[in-house]
Amino acid sequence: MRDYELTSATLAAALADPALESMNFLNEIASRYPGAISFASGRPTEEFFDVAEIHRYIDIYCEYLRRERGYDDAMVRRELFQYGRTKGLIHELIARHLDRDEGIRADPEALVVTVGCQEAMFITLRALRATDRDVLLAVSPVYVGLTGAARLVDLPIWPVRSGKDGIDFDHLAAQIAKARAQGRRARACYLMPDFANPSGTSLTIGQRRELLEVAAEQDILLLEDNPYGLFHDGEHMPTLKALDRGRSVIYLGSLAKTGFPGLRVGYVLADQRVLGRGLLADELSKIKSMVTVNTSAVAQAVAGGKLLRHGCSLRAANHRETATYLRNMRSLLAGLEDRFTGSAVTWNRPCGGFFAVVTTPFPADDAALEHSAHEHGVLWMPMRHFCTENAGDRQLRLACSQLSAEQIETGVDRFAAFVTSYGPTACS
Amino acid sequence: MRDYELTSATLAAALADPALESMNFLNEIASRYPGAISFASGRPTEEFFDVAEIHRYIDIYCEYLRRERGYDDAMVRRELFQYGRTKGLIHELIARHLDRDEGIRADPEALVVTVGCQEAMFITLRALRATDRDVLLAVSPVYVGLTGAARLVDLPIWPVRSGKDGIDFDHLAAQIAKARAQGRRARACYLMPDFANPSGTSLTIGQRRELLEVAAEQDILLLEDNPYGLFHDGEHMPTLKALDRGRSVIYLGSLAKTGFPGLRVGYVLADQRVLGRGLLADELSKIKSMVTVNTSAVAQAVAGGKLLRHGCSLRAANHRETATYLRNMRSLLAGLEDRFTGSAVTWNRPCGGFFAVVTTPFPADDAALEHSAHEHGVLWMPMRHFCTENAGDRQLRLACSQLSAEQIETGVDRFAAFVTSYGPTACS
Repeated sequence: MRDYELTSATLAAALADPALESMNFLNEIASRYPGAISFASGRPTEEFFDVAEIHRYIDIYCEYLRRERGYDDAMVRRELFQYGRTKGLIHELIARHLDRDEGIRADPEALVVTVGCQEAMFITLRALRATDRDVLLAVSPVYVGLTGAARLVDLPIWPVRSGKDGIDFDHLAAQIAKARAQGRRARACYLMPDFANPSGTSLTIGQRRELLEVAAEQDILLLEDNPYGLFHDGEHMPTLKALDRGRSVIYLGSLAKTGFPGLRVGYVLADQRVLGRGLLADELSKIKSMVTVNTSAVAQAVAGGKLLRHGCSLRAANHRETATYLRNMRSLLAGLEDRFTGSAVTWNRPCGGFFAVVTTPFPADDAALEHSAHEHGVLWMPMRHFCTENAGDRQLRLACSQLSAEQIETGVDRFAAFVTSYGPTACS
Repeated sequence: MRDYELTSATLAAALADPALESMNFLNEIASRYPGAISFASGRPTEEFFDVAEIHRYIDIYCEYLRRERGYDDAMVRRELFQYGRTKGLIHELIARHLDRDEGIRADPEALVVTVGCQEAMFITLRALRATDRDVLLAVSPVYVGLTGAARLVDLPIWPVRSGKDGIDFDHLAAQIAKARAQGRRARACYLMPDFANPSGTSLTIGQRRELLEVAAEQDILLLEDNPYGLFHDGEHMPTLKALDRGRSVIYLGSLAKTGFPGLRVGYVLADQRVLGRGLLADELSKIKSMVTVNTSAVAQAVAGGKLLRHGCSLRAANHRETATYLRNMRSLLAGLEDRFTGSAVTWNRPCGGFFAVVTTPFPADDAALEHSAHEHGVLWMPMRHFCTENAGDRQLRLACSQLSAEQIETGVDRFAAFVTSYGPTACS
């Protein structure tokens, strides 16, 4: 019998989109150069991983169900083993965390616990994509996970330039006006206001207030994604959601860096009202029920245990990790200063998060990365992968979250050697 | 500031689809009648749930990583905590299970571990939906999770009648021909060949072979969903995938009933070649990376531990559960026989699985269910919820998986009282 064979043309067109390849690209090049020092991957530090903690968190969560929720043993077992509430099990604990760490007063019923923040983005975009006239604005450069999710639900992304300050309000207004002029509708604007991936930049308090005003005036939603906000040096800026007085903000939450990635637990806070129905969270929950049914109860129990262990403060839970990230960022920035001050190479100076951006005098493209990996043993991420328009050709992202101080020192040496040797060649 | 408010018209049209409401409907009515005996829910038995097992499975999995895979402690920690392989971590263990329990020789690289079988369905349908001329065939009545997922990716479902034998081949051929005549393309036919949800029926070996021949001739894929196949009385029919010689079958696997629902671990076996690319599994993996990134490593570790604990045989792992399900099915069928033999009520006689179907002399609709719940304290599922066409009005699904022998006995009494009292009224 002849084998059934498929062709690309008979599969979803989104599969040919570069956004769906970018994550694989990063993994692939990392696997080909296992000896390279990687500034490419924004993974969390592995310094404090401890399998015993998983057991402990499960026990803490079960104890909480018994003591605080009054569950008997059969109910505890059911909670961990059986199908559960579509909107999730640990919504109240997440609401406590949001109150404690972010000053966000969240109605637990407006939370949907998701399979990582990726699912939160996906179901939100799926819900907001009503017709082919809808478009999504996103501050560019854009996290590839957002681009890929938007592609899967056939929602075009229109970039909003970040300029040098984090967001170009004139361009935002222009894009909204352009959509209107075309009979289209800008549903929402996606951004990471704190230590953005990939740009590393944060909005000022003034920009946050201005953005909320624009959203209200223009009748668009803001999709606030905040995976890195807690890794700061003490000057914590309020999130958009904490400042939101008109329910303009859908808050996308991740526990991948503040919990751990292996959980795949995230959430979305969607407290908007849907006329004649209820909360937007309930509509998102309906979509979730057809994508993943619900989020693993075991994973939620571990996440819940970690929250409970630290009084629902993920800031407190991550004090060691935060110290590591801040030390690493300082080392990276000092390393760049040592080697590139006075040169044609420039970079930004984030005061937290995982990422910094370097501007090079030559195209920092995949070919340059291949050269850097092969000749100099150092990896980074071409900014081009995060750009939906023709931009970012001479920029690259350096992530320092997963490295040791020594690796950063050696890595910056290698990076400097790469830039010095590659630059003139590429520019000649 | 005025609150941002949404309207249904500005959200995905799929949200208004009855399929997305059906699962909620079931949960909602169950919560309103907590004292009712529920034949509505096809949840697995809770008899053998044991939180200590979760701890044990994690330990077994870590031990396997050390002994069989040669991982050091840092690698074990990384496996459970860090971002992982998009296609999953326990693919080799699942391949062993498929070999051992189903006689399916699966290339582990052709497996994608998913967030339950629901995500497996979702990403498969998303991949197969290339243009608006694509349609999906599905043996009707259809599992609502399939209908909902298809709706979310804008893939119309054309029902194929099951007739009294499980599948009406003439109707299948007619639907394929009709699609072709309309310039459309039937991509695949979805079905559960073993103890289907909701019909309880299984295909004979002859029907399986015929279906594979039709698929090859007509150039369509078969989507085989098999959550209940292992719960049989000893006469195990080969799955379509075990008989598949032309890679016509995409096999959708669930561990919700054979592992436990709280894991949310399932998988898809997609060993089809995509011209110039690779395996279909790799294309599905790209979609998954934009829906959930990867499946919780913690949940996979628990699932992997359960597989390892039983030599990768889920049949062996479930010998107690299977005994419970078979006992329950026999009690249910005997109960129906006692009360309805010679009446206008008829039913089928599955020899395994979770479900039986009763045909009533009156419309077994939501109003009848409300009456049954309110007046008689017994719940069941109107078949209408599983039908994409105008059918099933006088049928209902009885699930017996989660009940005790006593509950079934009492439940059938209540059900008989409901039918006796409601039938004449409704028919008058």
